[in-house]
Amino acid sequence: MAKSVLVLNGPNLNMLGLREPQIYGTDTLAHIEALVAEEAERLGLAVECRQSNHEGQLIDWIQQAHGEHHGIIINPGAYSHTSLAIHDALKAVGLPVLEVHLSNIFKREAFRHHSYVSLVAVGVICGLGATGYRLALQALNEKL
Amino acid sequence: MAKSVLVLNGPNLNMLGLREPQIYGTDTLAHIEALVAEEAERLGLAVECRQSNHEGQLIDWIQQAHGEHHGIIINPGAYSHTSLAIHDALKAVGLPVLEVHLSNIFKREAFRHHSYVSLVAVGVICGLGATGYRLALQALNEKL
Amino acid sequence: MAKSVLVLNGPNLNMLGLREPQIYGTDTLAHIEALVAEEAERLGLAVECRQSNHEGQLIDWIQQAHGEHHGIIINPGAYSHTSLAIHDALKAVGLPVLEVHLSNIFKREAFRHHSYVSLVAVGVICGLGATGYRLALQALNEKL
Amino acid sequence: MAKSVLVLNGPNLNMLGLREPQIYGTDTLAHIEALVAEEAERLGLAVECRQSNHEGQLIDWIQQAHGEHHGIIINPGAYSHTSLAIHDALKAVGLPVLEVHLSNIFKREAFRHHSYVSLVAVGVICGLGATGYRLALQALNEKL
Amino acid sequence: MAKSVLVLNGPNLNMLGLREPQIYGTDTLAHIEALVAEEAERLGLAVECRQSNHEGQLIDWIQQAHGEHHGIIINPGAYSHTSLAIHDALKAVGLPVLEVHLSNIFKREAFRHHSYVSLVAVGVICGLGATGYRLALQALNEKL
Amino acid sequence: MAKSVLVLNGPNLNMLGLREPQIYGTDTLAHIEALVAEEAERLGLAVECRQSNHEGQLIDWIQQAHGEHHGIIINPGAYSHTSLAIHDALKAVGLPVLEVHLSNIFKREAFRHHSYVSLVAVGVICGLGATGYRLALQALNEKL
Amino acid sequence: MAKSVLVLNGPNLNMLGLREPQIYGTDTLAHIEALVAEEAERLGLAVECRQSNHEGQLIDWIQQAHGEHHGIIINPGAYSHTSLAIHDALKAVGLPVLEVHLSNIFKREAFRHHSYVSLVAVGVICGLGATGYRLALQALNEKL
Amino acid sequence: MAKSVLVLNGPNLNMLGLREPQIYGTDTLAHIEALVAEEAERLGLAVECRQSNHEGQLIDWIQQAHGEHHGIIINPGAYSHTSLAIHDALKAVGLPVLEVHLSNIFKREAFRHHSYVSLVAVGVICGLGATGYRLALQALNEKL
Amino acid sequence: MAKSVLVLNGPNLNMLGLREPQIYGTDTLAHIEALVAEEAERLGLAVECRQSNHEGQLIDWIQQAHGEHHGIIINPGAYSHTSLAIHDALKAVGLPVLEVHLSNIFKREAFRHHSYVSLVAVGVICGLGATGYRLALQALNEKL
Amino acid sequence: MAKSVLVLNGPNLNMLGLREPQIYGTDTLAHIEALVAEEAERLGLAVECRQSNHEGQLIDWIQQAHGEHHGIIINPGAYSHTSLAIHDALKAVGLPVLEVHLSNIFKREAFRHHSYVSLVAVGVICGLGATGYRLALQALNEKL
Amino acid sequence: MAKSVLVLNGPNLNMLGLREPQIYGTDTLAHIEALVAEEAERLGLAVECRQSNHEGQLIDWIQQAHGEHHGIIINPGAYSHTSLAIHDALKAVGLPVLEVHLSNIFKREAFRHHSYVSLVAVGVICGLGATGYRLALQALNEKL
Amino acid sequence: MAKSVLVLNGPNLNMLGLREPQIYGTDTLAHIEALVAEEAERLGLAVECRQSNHEGQLIDWIQQAHGEHHGIIINPGAYSHTSLAIHDALKAVGLPVLEVHLSNIFKREAFRHHSYVSLVAVGVICGLGATGYRLALQALNEKL
Repeated sequence: MAKSVLVLNGPNLNMLGLREPQIYGTDTLAHIEALVAEEAERLGLAVECRQSNHEGQLIDWIQQAHGEHHGIIINPGAYSHTSLAIHDALKAVGLPVLEVHLSNIFKREAFRHHSYVSLVAVGVICGLGATGYRLALQALNEKL
Repeated sequence: MAKSVLVLNGPNLNMLGLREPQIYGTDTLAHIEALVAEEAERLGLAVECRQSNHEGQLIDWIQQAHGEHHGIIINPGAYSHTSLAIHDALKAVGLPVLEVHLSNIFKREAFRHHSYVSLVAVGVICGLGATGYRLALQALNEKL
Repeated sequence: MAKSVLVLNGPNLNMLGLREPQIYGTDTLAHIEALVAEEAERLGLAVECRQSNHEGQLIDWIQQAHGEHHGIIINPGAYSHTSLAIHDALKAVGLPVLEVHLSNIFKREAFRHHSYVSLVAVGVICGLGATGYRLALQALNEKL
Repeated sequence: MAKSVLVLNGPNLNMLGLREPQIYGTDTLAHIEALVAEEAERLGLAVECRQSNHEGQLIDWIQQAHGEHHGIIINPGAYSHTSLAIHDALKAVGLPVLEVHLSNIFKREAFRHHSYVSLVAVGVICGLGATGYRLALQALNEKL
Repeated sequence: MAKSVLVLNGPNLNMLGLREPQIYGTDTLAHIEALVAEEAERLGLAVECRQSNHEGQLIDWIQQAHGEHHGIIINPGAYSHTSLAIHDALKAVGLPVLEVHLSNIFKREAFRHHSYVSLVAVGVICGLGATGYRLALQALNEKL
Repeated sequence: MAKSVLVLNGPNLNMLGLREPQIYGTDTLAHIEALVAEEAERLGLAVECRQSNHEGQLIDWIQQAHGEHHGIIINPGAYSHTSLAIHDALKAVGLPVLEVHLSNIFKREAFRHHSYVSLVAVGVICGLGATGYRLALQALNEKL
Repeated sequence: MAKSVLVLNGPNLNMLGLREPQIYGTDTLAHIEALVAEEAERLGLAVECRQSNHEGQLIDWIQQAHGEHHGIIINPGAYSHTSLAIHDALKAVGLPVLEVHLSNIFKREAFRHHSYVSLVAVGVICGLGATGYRLALQALNEKL
Repeated sequence: MAKSVLVLNGPNLNMLGLREPQIYGTDTLAHIEALVAEEAERLGLAVECRQSNHEGQLIDWIQQAHGEHHGIIINPGAYSHTSLAIHDALKAVGLPVLEVHLSNIFKREAFRHHSYVSLVAVGVICGLGATGYRLALQALNEKL
Repeated sequence: MAKSVLVLNGPNLNMLGLREPQIYGTDTLAHIEALVAEEAERLGLAVECRQSNHEGQLIDWIQQAHGEHHGIIINPGAYSHTSLAIHDALKAVGLPVLEVHLSNIFKREAFRHHSYVSLVAVGVICGLGATGYRLALQALNEKL
Repeated sequence: MAKSVLVLNGPNLNMLGLREPQIYGTDTLAHIEALVAEEAERLGLAVECRQSNHEGQLIDWIQQAHGEHHGIIINPGAYSHTSLAIHDALKAVGLPVLEVHLSNIFKREAFRHHSYVSLVAVGVICGLGATGYRLALQALNEKL
Repeated sequence: MAKSVLVLNGPNLNMLGLREPQIYGTDTLAHIEALVAEEAERLGLAVECRQSNHEGQLIDWIQQAHGEHHGIIINPGAYSHTSLAIHDALKAVGLPVLEVHLSNIFKREAFRHHSYVSLVAVGVICGLGATGYRLALQALNEKL
Repeated sequence: MAKSVLVLNGPNLNMLGLREPQIYGTDTLAHIEALVAEEAERLGLAVECRQSNHEGQLIDWIQQAHGEHHGIIINPGAYSHTSLAIHDALKAVGLPVLEVHLSNIFKREAFRHHSYVSLVAVGVICGLGATGYRLALQALNEKL
């Protein structure tokens, strides 16, 4: 049976394409999710894509991944830098986690240089735009 | 057609009048919203007032302001100091933002001296109680 | 009439028993809540137990405790360390608060050593597992 | 009898219009003082406007406001961030103080994010250009 | 045979009742030790209570607990925050340690927020006055 | 004509397989370079692989890439965290740079959490072992 | 011939008696200067007392003390904490300096705990009100 | 009846005259205590002089001053900078405290610039050698 | 027509030759100004030399340089390290600025290592004594 | 006549063999002191070995070494990191000091990385267990 | 016989003209060395110019200057900020050192504001481009 | 067969005897290496002594020690404080390491108080000059 991956996008990623295109590019979230679906199919993986601006909702989904999915790809957006609760949820659910950022967070404001999620992720990919999700799927596929 | 302003109040501001009156005064949120409506009418502005204790809800409303409103007045309460996600939402929606605080946050605990919202606001008004909202409407009206 | 106590558990505490048993033990939240109910009955207290992963939901419940409960026992989980908004809600509602942590947070990562909730709590009990809740009920009972 | 307000401008504000118009706009100090006078008249207040580049001169004027004026509006310019002596003078004279900044100091260099004057002001208005003075007069008028 | 607990009180705790009653309450140390004895009897534990202002004396007693007692309850007073040597002694003797503070140290001066003893304690109870010792005995009793 | 990529490995990466396999895995550098060559061929890219323990040598190679290569993949090892000179060389040569780390540097010692190279890289991939190089080639190929 | 002492008072000390009497007491500066004159006469010293709110004026007077006076007693007020230039002037003039503060600056805000003047003073006396000046004269008299 | 003053000297002050005379001068502790006795007699005060290298001993003496003495002059030596327990003892005993240092501690190593005792002292005198004790007696005499 | 340069010297530089010759050498300010005049003549530049101990006076002169001079050479003395207002004045007047220090400030106390003026200067020359002014004139001459 | 060396061991070193053998090894203090005596005899030195948990006792012994011993070997245990008073005593007594630690303190908790004693020691030997004392004797013997 | 000066340029300075011309200008290193040679000839000095990207090579050359040269002009590039070893070499060789930077390093990233070389240099010249070397030669010539 | 030890000396240690003899003494490196050879012979150890100013060279030698030597004695000079790459090399090669410093680095500039090498060394010996190497050989001999 196909391995299944949960792809989570955090706050404001539903604004992609509208929001600061000089930083995030012109791709919409729908476009990225389509690209993810396509790559998953190519790799023989099942994927489920979710986005929320609510920290609590993201935690609920992460917890529900237990028994439903075999790995998580997460772009936690601004919650990367402030949410210890998401960090704890990822640690609790115990699945392999890949963290993705569209932009290179190390070239931006100092408060984006630290991610609580990185502390519990297998790996981190940042600065590669939509491609980052595709690469994360490949990497997760090799792990699973 | 009248310009429209979204007035957002963050966590615990629904407790006004009850909560620490020696800091926040005895005005309730209903009273402040009435005062805002009255001033808006005087200035020929439309206003919509919202309050939530949920960071994610505030972000949703900020995003929905796109195309609905011409400016935002926000008192982010405690989220001023911790929410990078609200900061990102305000930056993404691209409307002029005025930040209001009832109390003078610089006279209070050190952890209230920094606001992520100030980094994306046009201006900041603090310490003037309910009057601060009225002045913010005037300032926003001049901008629009 | 019996005094009533609100017992709040924050993010990921619904994962107890599953999540990192080497830190949190093998008791489930249901087990802890049963133990709390039993101790409350022994002390002649009414209790209501709630858990949420949503910061905003926890704030709503804290505010609603006003007039409904005589004290609050809270294990804020990861929000202890990041939520100024919960701190403000507890301060606003003005009830006596006891903070409980299952693990000894001072033996863990540095970012768990500071709690915003401790600044508004009557007392703090940590490191005693499920027993901590039982002791908190006793202490609160003496206060009330 | 009319209430009287002292309006103080600190170092380099006499350069307005010349100095970095992309930050401070093109209004001259004379223009701002005319706008202040007009608003004061509308509100039935007396005002006296002063500017100096000398920290000591500003302190002398603040001290002399005792018995002469009922409130102070001050844009301390760079002294906001370095002058503990102006802070002490404002505290000593005991009049209500409103602090105004033309630009949003929180969007600028880190060394402009802290103001000693904010610690003794009733309220702070920043980022609203010349309008900030007008709003400060209204706020002070309500206080008096 | 009854389990035995060493109850240690550090510097200035012999001044209880005299010293700053608005922080520590009006109970004397004798009163607290009586309460401890009573609770111990209820639980079937032996206790020995000691107080000293001398860091070295406290260390000597901790070391001597080896083979004499089964657990330690300690209120290290000011030495909580400065004595690495007491921390080392507790770690060396290897008995379960419960740390008690009469006041909520997190509401006090910043230099009382960190305790070297917490790093080696099973658990910490603070802010509950004399009751804290009673609860600590219960918790230790469950451990033993 | 085929695009050419310079793949640089910094200090101690020639020890792979020998050095701390619990962190870096059991793959040797030769194995990784073979894997890189294979992936490059699949993508129609030319690659040149170099390793040195000498900061100056790495800088010389980076400078010589000008006119020779179209992009750089670099795992700077420990120099990531200390070499401002490599950062300057990469900035000077002006080619797109992808930074790769075998391990997730954010899970390790604090002094490995900051990389000067990240400040000038297009993107960063870490924690994915030898796979990270392969993904970096794909990402660079899309850029070129 | 009598030894001569320059007694300098810095910003806002001319407000004594008016300014925050709960901190500085109700003595006016005139009263303190009279007390200084009286003590000087008792000790057979000449004194000259000066006060200014202007940092530059204080520096001018310190420089002019060269050849005119044999020692300096200075209460630099807020300039203690911010004026490196006064520190340099005192060092340049090379006379023995006694620093006096009316209040105990170590009990006040953190930004008053450091004094640039202390780095070049023979001694420091603080917290003793007007008496501090009298004791400083005695100490300086013994030095001369 | 004569007021009585306890004069405490902390660690290593029994080494005076021997220890680093370029910092502390050549006076022995016996000499200083004689000088103190003489000045006390002149002022009509009783004095008791004690020295110890033991933090606990100093605390015992401070506690015993309650009911025995009307004020305390203390040179806490190195314990100034490290002993929160002496700070607590002085606060608990509630007598007026004058802190004396022979040398100007602000001209020495950074770790001597902060004193826990200053936080509970009426006043501080430093850098005036043996004279400092004499002046402290005068100041305390005025207080009593 | 000859280009004109304003040469400003800040606080205590009028004490040169007297003040700490082991740091600043034995040249007087008059000597340095003569040397500057001579070099200016050699280069065909007009110069005007000013010194003040008053921060406000230095700011006034900087502002008046607008339209009067083509460049500024400034040795801000101690104000380098504390005066944001001088920094702002130099930025406002918009002329090329060369900063000169007689001594190598990086070899001295830590509080002299940072200069606000360096942030707005074209270049900085320090440690070269009077020669530094001569070299600054040459450098400014090349710019003009 | 034989040179004499005082060998001091600080708090908890009497627990050696019992205390955390994975860090300190299984040698008892008696064993180490025997080893020291043997090595001293081989070198023709007299030694006196002392251990105390009391900071004040250690200071007394250091002071008494004056005229009794020609050098000091000290393992200050936890007091290395907190006792400025022992630092002062060693400086006052003026004998050559060698500091020994059984474990490599730089591999342990951050609060063990700084030693006040190192600031006054001739040399430091750490991480070599009981051998460290033997080497310290050799080094001191060469000095004497 | 002519005095001889060693002119050292550190990493990436061989890229001048190519590398970030908006910061470093369009002059090549060859051009600068020609300019240096010309100025040296004008001053009657011998010069030897060297550049390396290798920290060790720069140290070797500095050491070899002993007995070969009378002074050193060094632009250490990025090694200014990270190389304590170059700092030590310059200190060891004992020749007068002038530090030159093409750009004003204080206007750039924070990690370029501190230079280890400045701690051992006679003087520092920065922000004056190629002219800086010429002025350094003049200054060094006066020293020699 | 004899155990073999690699003795490495880092940058500027080839300058010994010339360089700052007040800190490092007058022994040359040749003298120290002779002393090392002599002690090794006494202990029945083989030794190989190497010195380089090049970080990369030191790393190469450390890596090559694998299979060639049984332990390493290293005085990393200034690279102690800046080279994470040497730290990694020592960790990778997995041999027991003794770190030696001629001077007591804790008495010198703050930037010499931290050593990356100490984090991977068995033990550290500093402040004992050439003797330190001799003692390190003894300690290593006991380990092997």
